[in-house]
Amino acid sequence: MEDTDDDVPLILTWDDANSGLLSEETERGDENGGGGYDIVNNQVIPTPGPPPNYRSHNASLQQSWEMNYQEAAIYLQEGENNDKFFTHPRNPKALAAYLFAHNHLFYMMELLTGVLLMVLSLCEAPAVPSLRLDVYVHATLELLALVMVAFELCMKLRWLGFHTFIRHKRTMVKTCVLLLQFVEAIVVLIRQTSHLRVTRALRPIFLVDCRYCGAVRRNLRQIFQSLPPFIDILLLLLFFMVIFAILGFCLFSPNTSDPYFNTLENSIVSLFVLVTTANFPDVMMPAYSRNRWSCVFFIVYLSIELYFIMNLLLAVVFDTFNGVEKMKFKSLLLHKRSAIDHAFQLLVSRQRPMGVSLKQFDGLMRFYRPRMSSRDRFLTYKALNTAGAPMLSLDDFYKFYEVIGLKWKARRSGEHWFDDLPHTTFLIFKGINLLVKSKAFQYTMYVVVAVNGVWILVETYMLNSGFSWSRMVPWSYIVFLTIYGVEVLLKLTGLGPLAYFSSGWNLFDFSVTVFAFLGLITLAFDMEPFYFIVVLRPLQLLRLFKIKQRYRNVLDTMFELFPRMASLGLTLIIFYYSFAIVGMEFFADVVYPNCCNTSTVADSYRQINVTIGNRTVLDEGYYYLNNFNNILSSFVTLFELTVVNNWYITMEGVTSMTTHWSRLYFMTFYIVTMVVMTIIVAFILDAFVFRMNYSRKNKEPLLDPEDENGIVFEAEVSRDEALATLELYKKTCPGLSSLNSLQGVLLAMDRSGSSSLVYLGRRSRTKSDLSMKMYEEEIQEWYAEYSRENLPQSDRSLVERELDIPPPCPERES
Amino acid sequence: MEDTDDDVPLILTWDDANSGLLSEETERGDENGGGGYDIVNNQVIPTPGPPPNYRSHNASLQQSWEMNYQEAAIYLQEGENNDKFFTHPRNPKALAAYLFAHNHLFYMMELLTGVLLMVLSLCEAPAVPSLRLDVYVHATLELLALVMVAFELCMKLRWLGFHTFIRHKRTMVKTCVLLLQFVEAIVVLIRQTSHLRVTRALRPIFLVDCRYCGAVRRNLRQIFQSLPPFIDILLLLLFFMVIFAILGFCLFSPNTSDPYFNTLENSIVSLFVLVTTANFPDVMMPAYSRNRWSCVFFIVYLSIELYFIMNLLLAVVFDTFNGVEKMKFKSLLLHKRSAIDHAFQLLVSRQRPMGVSLKQFDGLMRFYRPRMSSRDRFLTYKALNTAGAPMLSLDDFYKFYEVIGLKWKARRSGEHWFDDLPHTTFLIFKGINLLVKSKAFQYTMYVVVAVNGVWILVETYMLNSGFSWSRMVPWSYIVFLTIYGVEVLLKLTGLGPLAYFSSGWNLFDFSVTVFAFLGLITLAFDMEPFYFIVVLRPLQLLRLFKIKQRYRNVLDTMFELFPRMASLGLTLIIFYYSFAIVGMEFFADVVYPNCCNTSTVADSYRQINVTIGNRTVLDEGYYYLNNFNNILSSFVTLFELTVVNNWYITMEGVTSMTTHWSRLYFMTFYIVTMVVMTIIVAFILDAFVFRMNYSRKNKEPLLDPEDENGIVFEAEVSRDEALATLELYKKTCPGLSSLNSLQGVLLAMDRSGSSSLVYLGRRSRTKSDLSMKMYEEEIQEWYAEYSRENLPQSDRSLVERELDIPPPCPERES
Repeated sequence: MEDTDDDVPLILTWDDANSGLLSEETERGDENGGGGYDIVNNQVIPTPGPPPNYRSHNASLQQSWEMNYQEAAIYLQEGENNDKFFTHPRNPKALAAYLFAHNHLFYMMELLTGVLLMVLSLCEAPAVPSLRLDVYVHATLELLALVMVAFELCMKLRWLGFHTFIRHKRTMVKTCVLLLQFVEAIVVLIRQTSHLRVTRALRPIFLVDCRYCGAVRRNLRQIFQSLPPFIDILLLLLFFMVIFAILGFCLFSPNTSDPYFNTLENSIVSLFVLVTTANFPDVMMPAYSRNRWSCVFFIVYLSIELYFIMNLLLAVVFDTFNGVEKMKFKSLLLHKRSAIDHAFQLLVSRQRPMGVSLKQFDGLMRFYRPRMSSRDRFLTYKALNTAGAPMLSLDDFYKFYEVIGLKWKARRSGEHWFDDLPHTTFLIFKGINLLVKSKAFQYTMYVVVAVNGVWILVETYMLNSGFSWSRMVPWSYIVFLTIYGVEVLLKLTGLGPLAYFSSGWNLFDFSVTVFAFLGLITLAFDMEPFYFIVVLRPLQLLRLFKIKQRYRNVLDTMFELFPRMASLGLTLIIFYYSFAIVGMEFFADVVYPNCCNTSTVADSYRQINVTIGNRTVLDEGYYYLNNFNNILSSFVTLFELTVVNNWYITMEGVTSMTTHWSRLYFMTFYIVTMVVMTIIVAFILDAFVFRMNYSRKNKEPLLDPEDENGIVFEAEVSRDEALATLELYKKTCPGLSSLNSLQGVLLAMDRSGSSSLVYLGRRSRTKSDLSMKMYEEEIQEWYAEYSRENLPQSDRSLVERELDIPPPCPERES
Repeated sequence: MEDTDDDVPLILTWDDANSGLLSEETERGDENGGGGYDIVNNQVIPTPGPPPNYRSHNASLQQSWEMNYQEAAIYLQEGENNDKFFTHPRNPKALAAYLFAHNHLFYMMELLTGVLLMVLSLCEAPAVPSLRLDVYVHATLELLALVMVAFELCMKLRWLGFHTFIRHKRTMVKTCVLLLQFVEAIVVLIRQTSHLRVTRALRPIFLVDCRYCGAVRRNLRQIFQSLPPFIDILLLLLFFMVIFAILGFCLFSPNTSDPYFNTLENSIVSLFVLVTTANFPDVMMPAYSRNRWSCVFFIVYLSIELYFIMNLLLAVVFDTFNGVEKMKFKSLLLHKRSAIDHAFQLLVSRQRPMGVSLKQFDGLMRFYRPRMSSRDRFLTYKALNTAGAPMLSLDDFYKFYEVIGLKWKARRSGEHWFDDLPHTTFLIFKGINLLVKSKAFQYTMYVVVAVNGVWILVETYMLNSGFSWSRMVPWSYIVFLTIYGVEVLLKLTGLGPLAYFSSGWNLFDFSVTVFAFLGLITLAFDMEPFYFIVVLRPLQLLRLFKIKQRYRNVLDTMFELFPRMASLGLTLIIFYYSFAIVGMEFFADVVYPNCCNTSTVADSYRQINVTIGNRTVLDEGYYYLNNFNNILSSFVTLFELTVVNNWYITMEGVTSMTTHWSRLYFMTFYIVTMVVMTIIVAFILDAFVFRMNYSRKNKEPLLDPEDENGIVFEAEVSRDEALATLELYKKTCPGLSSLNSLQGVLLAMDRSGSSSLVYLGRRSRTKSDLSMKMYEEEIQEWYAEYSRENLPQSDRSLVERELDIPPPCPERES
């Protein structure tokens, strides 16, 4: 660590005086040879000003470094967030706006504004009855939220500059929608009544644009990328539909008792619904009862449309999806690499253009992760610096994103949490530990769970007379709960809370047991609304699936998929929201009991009293419940439409009460959900096939017990190193509080009496890690290609000058 | 072609005198070193007998060669059919049986017997009304068919030998089923009435065992191989179902108006049906109308079961399927290679152990493809012999299966069929040819088709009052038909019938146009039952899909998939058949109009007259049509169950008229079709993804115009060669008729005056060809592995002795 105080940065940034000039020139310098070097040199000792003495030189140098650290941190952040570099702040004013707009408080505000705007539709007419608000209240709330959005947009404008701002498509769309909503909200406030506001369907844009909704944005992009081939096949589907509609009309319209094919329009609608199978076999029945051979028409149609073209659709989307996933991974990877390149250039000094010293790295980290403790900053540096050289080379630095998420912990000297306890206590706990780790204990518990399962089944079966909440708690409930409670306590004491809760399965056991206890309490105290907790008891049975490897794999994959599934679900909800708004604007209150008498589905909307014998029974069709009367009902209705079965009853009901153009809404919704659902299927297929290929390729089960906890890095810290680092840190940032953690390391060494400590950094394995391993060879190619295209000529010539390497001959390059 | 008359075969087979000894010893010879060589030598000049003179020696030699040719042909046939070698005939008696049982007449008989047995159920009670036969008639027919099967089995026993016969599982199952059916048929004949014959469900076994149903057998095997992972996931599905059933029972049974969850059994059945979505949202409605939050239960259940686990099922099957496909391809490939190895050993002579001469190859082909003309035999030899060496090496011979299916044709000297016509005529035809090949003509036709499409649509839309057959033929029909007719004629004359019909699209155009003409004729002559031909007219519109590359690809893939899809369809029909028989035995005539009044689905079976105003309308539920009253109705009912929508109405109807154990039948059927359907989806997915990967990997569209016709081989035949070959053939088989084709070659040469002719061998590209290219690298590994394991030591040492190659050092081998 032979770091001197007057290292001069290779590149300078954001100089207050002539920032515009500088950044331009720096860029130019990047392009042509060693030009940047001279400019940099000029910048360090600014000519317009008093002649520099050593002190001011040093202070300005320090300031330049701080600037560089900050810009490097921003580059790395942009790499992490996949922000394009053309939005990189170019001057101090932009920087201030950038910093303002890039912290969790601001993100949170963005998110809350977006959510508030969407939630408003709960209270706007047609509102959920219990949440109805007066017009001036919700319109004022809306205006408030819109002002917030406008404020956020202003910050963005300040940061991006006008030119970049209007080039950024998403932001422009957002601005337009904002203006529209603004005008509409004011109109509502003035008229004191809501008009037909279909544009509310555009509100999700504010949510989607949030930083935290990046996954949703990616999903949307992926959906749009999969669209072209999807639409092609869809056209094929519709084409066959029209041909068969004409055939069906010709064949079946002479049969007057067949309502499905009596006009060409009905014929097309019937066959559209038939693709979803929702009206099968009813649609066939009138024709079939007339002539048995007419079933051939329907069998051929379904075979072509449902069993062939629909699967084709899946195949095409699956294939596109695969390609898009890989391309996305590639571009993310290369973007990160490029960010690291940029940051590296800002961190190297004129004296040592090949490496980043600990001092510079620490400066970077203070900006990149302000909350990170000094110990962890140092350990991260150690983890990067695999070669043990005094500097980080660019190759070391490329691993930045792999180590940045590690959680550091000292390697335990002992294995168990109770190692430090007195001998007798130790023996007891050791016994418990051995017990809970034994196979016998495990299998006993499986048997208990299985018996419990059978018990619950039999018990429920016996209850056939009808379940009643007020009944006494069965003794079996208490017995099994006691057993589970004892198990949890034993495991907790035997393994220690930390080890216990680090396993997802244990967490699951624990929470189910706690829920069961809560259920017992609700039963004991007669708290009616929480009774449902009691019935969660059978979830214990899920533990049985730990026994078999395949199930463990499946469930683990399920948990791994969960974040991505959640974002896909959110994407679906955003589509739902837009459709719900449109549905509410047009179809609110159109269906009600005993409506739709002119349609073929009148039965499903009927609600009449029928007298059977001497009892009067309410004969309910219930479908009037599937309405668009408020946003929650709309969501449920849309979910039913997504499931597709009997969706035409809802469609026909609404159509009979409005115009037959309403069908367009339902059919569009069907096609949109079909796209999203196909993407979801393709995604699940892809994720599983990927995992299975992965474990086949690496000839190992994906989760061997050793690295079940994910990625592990190791760093050994010696006493001298720790002391030297502490000195360095004291010099660079004298604030004492941030150094506590590093002093803690020294204290721990003193306590254990050893001259070095080993720290382990862990993080869970992500899809990206798996992809890295899967595409190993391709990644090398991508990197090679990338460096051919992107390595700036300047760096290269600089490096070469420094090391006296002759420029590569053309032959060697090829 | 320095073939001498007294080449001695390296291995001898099926010697009449001591065949058992020989075949055993030959095998032993294969195992231990060059031993086979000596034994062979001993065999050739049999010691017990008169001292051999040259003539008898020569005759016996000739006979030995013929034997070898035949056995080699059988080996190659076994390789082609994927018959295991342990069923290879071992002695002349077995050979006779083998030959008897391996020709198309026998196969046809097998197939017909199988079909007859299955078709019988059309006539057995409950029969299709118009096909009903008396008991003694159909029982006698059945006995007849069973005797045929028994005869076939006897032939197989003779060929395989008792020991192999009882080891062959499929044959043993067939025998048992045969015995059972025999006894039952006799019982039926004696009692003169059919008893409960569920065992008829086993009849498809006779069909599946046919040689021609190999694809179905492979499908079945693949289905069974995909079962274990499928069942695992199915258990997961059922497990969640039971858990949710308990929860549902606890939550919803207090609601007395909810018939879906009032007992645990109903709860499980409701949730089973819900996985198929068939009762959604009805199953939710009673609970939903009571408490709006109960929808959460159903949404969570459907999300887990339908959207997650069902997709998981597809993923697992897709993955297994991929693996199975590859393994199948590998084993087929290696089996063929092994067959070629065996055949090669039989064809080489003691004098030349490294190669097969034309004479031997021709001898083989006379057995392998008796109908092949001498010209084609020679051309096949030329195609194999790429190096132009006097012999085929083993490596040449490995390509045997690639060239055997080629259809040979002399390369046309001219391009068009009308090249030989007089000049004026030639010019006219040339003009037509240029016209039909021009883009303008093509696009004009597309426009015509599109206009026709719009016309038909508008015309049909105008007809909204109802379609009537007796109406006059619209003039547009005649106009468009004339245009299409002219187009077909122009293309036929311009391209020549051969070129015209070689394109699938042209064939399609042609047949649609012919159908349209037939339609016109039926209209003109008022033939009512054939009216449906008229409405096939819109199929013309399919031609529009030629415009875009993706559609061409999709439709081509569709045609390529067709054989495989057909075999999958047949597999499905076999499952249908078994289920139909079981259904008929138990549920025939249980549902009828106005039955099932005790069930919740009584409405669907109702058939009553309703008086609305002053009109009496028949209010029909129609579901009584979905019955098991005869095998055709059963098939339609089972198809409806396959489509799944509303299947529970059929299930509940039947259940209410029988016992609730009937549900087991319907649920089992659902699971079985789910397996088959998932396999079909996986197959389509696989086929398309494979094709797309293929074209990506080879950076070319799959069907570039050049090799649209598939695989092409070229062979040039010079005059001298042809003459020499003719001489050789005359010597080996003096029958003149078979030489005509070779003499034809010489005649063609004389006519054209050239000293050589080029022949092109074509065949369509199969999936196996694509796989060969896809797995190129892996195939090399498989081969290497295979030869390490299988190359008999004897061959190697023999070869080495012959060529004086030192045995490879261990280092070189590794």
